[in-house]
This record gives sequence, C-alpha cells and structure tokens, in this order.
Amino acid sequence: MTANLQNDCFLRALLREPVERTPVWMMRQAGRYLPEYRRVRRQAGSFMDLCTQPELACEVTLQPLERFRLDAAILFSDILTIPHAMGLGLSFSEGEGPRFAHPLRTAADIQRLAAPDPENELRYVMDAVRLIRRSLNGRVPLIGFSGSPWTLACYMVEGGSSRDYAKVKGLLYDQPQLMHQLLEVLSQAVAAYLNAQIAAGAQTVMLFDTWGGVLSSEDYREFSLGYARRISAALSPEADGRRVPRILFTKGGGQWLSDMADAGYDALGVDWTTPLSVARAAVTERVALQGNLDPVVLYAAPETIRRKVQATLAQFGHGASGHVFNLGHGILPDVDPAHAETMIEAVHEFSPAYHVHG
Amino acid sequence: MTANLQNDCFLRALLREPVERTPVWMMRQAGRYLPEYRRVRRQAGSFMDLCTQPELACEVTLQPLERFRLDAAILFSDILTIPHAMGLGLSFSEGEGPRFAHPLRTAADIQRLAAPDPENELRYVMDAVRLIRRSLNGRVPLIGFSGSPWTLACYMVEGGSSRDYAKVKGLLYDQPQLMHQLLEVLSQAVAAYLNAQIAAGAQTVMLFDTWGGVLSSEDYREFSLGYARRISAALSPEADGRRVPRILFTKGGGQWLSDMADAGYDALGVDWTTPLSVARAAVTERVALQGNLDPVVLYAAPETIRRKVQATLAQFGHGASGHVFNLGHGILPDVDPAHAETMIEAVHEFSPAYHVHG
Repeated sequence: MTANLQNDCFLRALLREPVERTPVWMMRQAGRYLPEYRRVRRQAGSFMDLCTQPELACEVTLQPLERFRLDAAILFSDILTIPHAMGLGLSFSEGEGPRFAHPLRTAADIQRLAAPDPENELRYVMDAVRLIRRSLNGRVPLIGFSGSPWTLACYMVEGGSSRDYAKVKGLLYDQPQLMHQLLEVLSQAVAAYLNAQIAAGAQTVMLFDTWGGVLSSEDYREFSLGYARRISAALSPEADGRRVPRILFTKGGGQWLSDMADAGYDALGVDWTTPLSVARAAVTERVALQGNLDPVVLYAAPETIRRKVQATLAQFGHGASGHVFNLGHGILPDVDPAHAETMIEAVHEFSPAYHVHG
Repeated sequence: MTANLQNDCFLRALLREPVERTPVWMMRQAGRYLPEYRRVRRQAGSFMDLCTQPELACEVTLQPLERFRLDAAILFSDILTIPHAMGLGLSFSEGEGPRFAHPLRTAADIQRLAAPDPENELRYVMDAVRLIRRSLNGRVPLIGFSGSPWTLACYMVEGGSSRDYAKVKGLLYDQPQLMHQLLEVLSQAVAAYLNAQIAAGAQTVMLFDTWGGVLSSEDYREFSLGYARRISAALSPEADGRRVPRILFTKGGGQWLSDMADAGYDALGVDWTTPLSVARAAVTERVALQGNLDPVVLYAAPETIRRKVQATLAQFGHGASGHVFNLGHGILPDVDPAHAETMIEAVHEFSPAYHVHG
C-alpha cells in the first residue's frame, strides 16, 4: 500500500528475529516534553482538539522522529478514545488527568454501552493513522494502540484517575457478572478498533493495561489477562503480507509475565521494577520483551543515563534478539529532550555488541 | 515488667509456632474509619497534636480492640516521626497527606542530619508505648513501628507525597554516595528508635517500606533492603525473656520476597498482588507471612468479604503456622466499621480448620 519499510529493526525484534542493534522508541515520545509539541498543542486548544484533528495528530506523531534516531512512530492519541466514542465525554484538566463527564454509575449505564464503529465514531483516529503512515513513507513502522478493557473500565467507572480504585473494584467484587458484561463489550470494541488501525496502516499494535497491576493475581487473570487473550485471538494476524506483531504491557505486571507470555502476544512490555534478566527467564523463548529504563533516570546527568542504558542492555544480555529498548513507562512531561537523546544515542552506541554472532 | 500476655497467638504465628487459629489485625486499625477516632482527633486538633499526646495516642490505639476481636494493638503514631524529630517540620494537610516544612534540598541539609535521641526528641512516642503497654495489661501484644530509611528518605527529599519520586530518585541516580550517607543516618535513627520502643514495651516491631516498590530490583536491594538488613542486625532480639519478632513490609515487593526472607526478619508483609501460595513458595520455611486482603474488599458486601477471607486463608493453605491475617495495605478511611468486623469474624470462623493437626 505504501513505500517499502526502510527500517524494520523494530518489527524484527518484536518477532525475535536477528537484528544488528537493539531498536528503541519511547512511550509517550510525542508529548509535552517537546517544545514543538507544546506549540502545536497551544494552537489546537484542548488535548482532545489535538487528538481529533488528523493533520495535527500526524504532525506531533512525527516530531520526535525529526529530533531523535527512533525506530518506531506511535500514533498520537489517547488510551480513552473508545469510552469517549461510547458517549462518556472525555476531557483533560491540567495536571489532573482524564475526566469523564458521564461515568458509569448504574447497571443500566453498562447495559446500554455498544462497541463504536471505528470508521464512524473513531474515524478521526483512522484518518490520523492513514495520514501518518503516508507521511512516514516507510521510514519506520507505525504503532497503533488501545487501552486494555480493564484499564478502560477503571476510568469509566471511577470517572477519572483514582487512588484506590474503590468504585471499579467494588463492581468487580460485588457484581462480577456485570463487570464481565462491561469487559466483554469493551473487548469487542478494542479488537475492532485495533483491527481498524491495522487496516488503516498500523504495522504493530500495543495494548496498554496501565492498571492491571492494582489487581490481585487471581483477579488479574480473570478480569484483565483473560480479555487481553480474547482480543489477541480476534486481531488480524497480517497486513501487507507481513505479520503485525502485538505487544501487551501491564504496568506492575512483573509477577505475571510467565502467564502473559501465553496470551497470544509477540512481545511484552516490562516496567523497571523487574530486571530484564528475570523477565527473560520467566518468558523463556515465547515472546520478545520491551523496556525497561525507569523514566525518572532521564532527569539524571547524561553520564548516569548512559550507565543505566548499558546496565539495561546487559540485563537482557547477549544474543539479544527479542529486545526492544524503551522506558518502563511514559516519558515524563518535563524531561529535557537532550536527555532523551542521550538515552537513544547510548542504545545506538552500546547495543550492537549484544548482537554479535559467531 | 507487666502482666503476662493472655493472647500470644500473634507472636507465636510470627515465629511460625503452632496456633489454634490465624491471628488477625489491620494496618491502620486505629484510624479515621472509626467514629470514636474522629471524635478524639477533633478534640486533639491536628494529626500531630494527636500523635504527640500520649494519653490520646493511647486512647485511639485501644479503640479498635474495644470493637473487634483483634490479636494485636499497634502504637498510634506516624511513620515520619523521625524526620520530624530531625527538624524537618511535619504537618498533614487534609486529603493531601504529609508535608515537610523543611525538605532536604542540598548536600549540606543531609550532612547536618543527626539521629535523634528516642528518649528525648521522640519521648512522646516512648511515653505512648509505655502507657499503651500498661493499659493493655497483657490483653494482646503491642506492635511498635517505623518507616524504613528509604521510605523516610522519599518523603524527606520530595517534601511530601510524590507521583514519580523524581527528586529522591534523582539523588539516588546522580549522587548515590550522598544517598547512602542519608540512608546511613536514617538507619541508625530507625534502629535506635525501634530499640527504644522495645525497651518501652513494644513486643514486636514492624518496618514499613511503603515506597520500596518504586525502585528497580537492583536499587531496591542496594538502597532499601540493604538498610533493612542492617537495622534488623542492630535490633534487640529479646525483651522480658521473649523473642521480639520483626516484620518487614515492602508494598509492591512481591517480586523480591525471597531476598527479603534473608534480611533477618521473622515475618514479611505481603500486599494483595502476590498470592500467599506464591509468597509461601518463595520464602519456603524461612519466615512467616502477614497479609494480604485488598483493602478495597472492605467496601464490598459482607458475603463477598467472607468469601475473600476464605480464599485468602485457602491460598496460604493447610498447616497454616506462620500466617498472620491482615489487609494488604492500611484500612481505607471511609470503610464501614461493620465491614471490618465481618472480615475479622470470618478469620475467627474459618481459620481454625487450617490449623487442625492429625
């Protein structure tokens, strides 16, 4: 459909194929730490105004690629577009994160939910994917994404960020069947949404399970991982005759990596609390791993950043097929872009030694 | 020194000795969810006014024992009394948690810190311990406690609660030697403080490492667990001719339980993200375990609470010496006390079956 991919290092690493160096990108790489992003954001108005205008979403998606030697672009959007399309009314207040005008309060609120049509209510996302893919012109692959059903449910029931997740866990504990009903419709919506992104040009997709880590092990398996598995089973395996790798990231999920490795994903995101050596032993040869530098390291001095990059590469170890370098969570909004560059350049400098064969 | 202990079920379980049923207490059991606590708190004025008046601290410590069949009392105090005694000026703002008027900003701020004398600057805590121990009159054992050096450092450097721990991690990443200097003086202070509590009558002590879980594995070992180990080595092993068990709790530390089991503690706290079956396999016969019901379960219906208590007991399993039932974190401030009672009574009802020998 478009130009051949000039840099497929990232896609190959996700499939555990040999690469010459470790590919690198950053969660939230198109974002507030970049002055050029803040300029476009000011022009756009609100955060949602920026998300819903494909030309602007495309512009900010490409910004970090102009600065840094990154191996992937990620669609600029939000994990909560699906509930917004379901009518919950998403907005962002400065410093407080997402807010829903109409959170789920009753069983009837849940029962009337329907999976949105991605090419209708979420058309602005698909248009952005198409435009970004065209603008990338094969430079690097494009990542599509969605929040996981459990993570969407957290925000939809709480109405925004939460300290204790008391409302959504209350639903889970007291009315598990109703919670399953909610997660079921969200799973259908997420699968359709990710498949539409693949059809529109996303070359890999990532499921962000930001709040899976607040659950007990047992509940994680039933209410988060189970739905991640159903989504992966419903995803288009290929596009343009090439495998579309899937990435699953549960923040705080280090204890569950071995279970996650059997959920139908090609790669797992790992946060910084789990050493990549431990993660690699847990998942054996089943999946690739993506991570895991503590985002706070980017506040440190350049020499510290370089040392921590080396340590992260060394933790994954030699024969490093199947490692994608990333932060262990999104880049923080007031990081100096020069520090992000130090990290990325250090991956370019130090990682080839881990891929020498023979 | 005082009356014989009438109920030593808790102390025996911490030492993995046989008991007839699983002992139970709740982190933050003396607190805002109790109307009688809120009444005393209002009379006292600020939270620190309550902490620093031994008669009032004693009164609220005993309140939950009047309501519930608990197997331990825990000193009513705060984890941040040591930095307050070091001159940082602790206060609590409604809904925002602790604040230090004078957070650590420079190397000189750290270098001038000195471990406080527990019987001088922290005399109010020791007086409370003595008074509570006398008032308990052997009914149940009294737990003393402190924040861990790493957790104290988090608050002292950040100045309060934090989202990303950017300042304290910045210190750790860029100036590890200075961070070690800070943790060293805090370790001396914590050891002296806990030993003074033991001398004043605490029959077991608990180290709360609330923020150990935000570190990478490697940094957790170096900057948190290493100091927990040094503290345990410095603690008085006995009082009144009886072992004083030590409990270590790192919230979010499920991945590190096996390492923690070798740090010189008799028992480890476990949060709800790690199943007790997994925790038990990780620590083998080395330590007892304390936990781990999700505090949010107490918002659920009584039948749900009872079912979750049963599931938690079953996860630890039969031959249940070495299990202390607790929440996986502090009780939430707006829980209905009747729900706490449901939990406690369910432990009394269901746990004897796990202790049948034969």
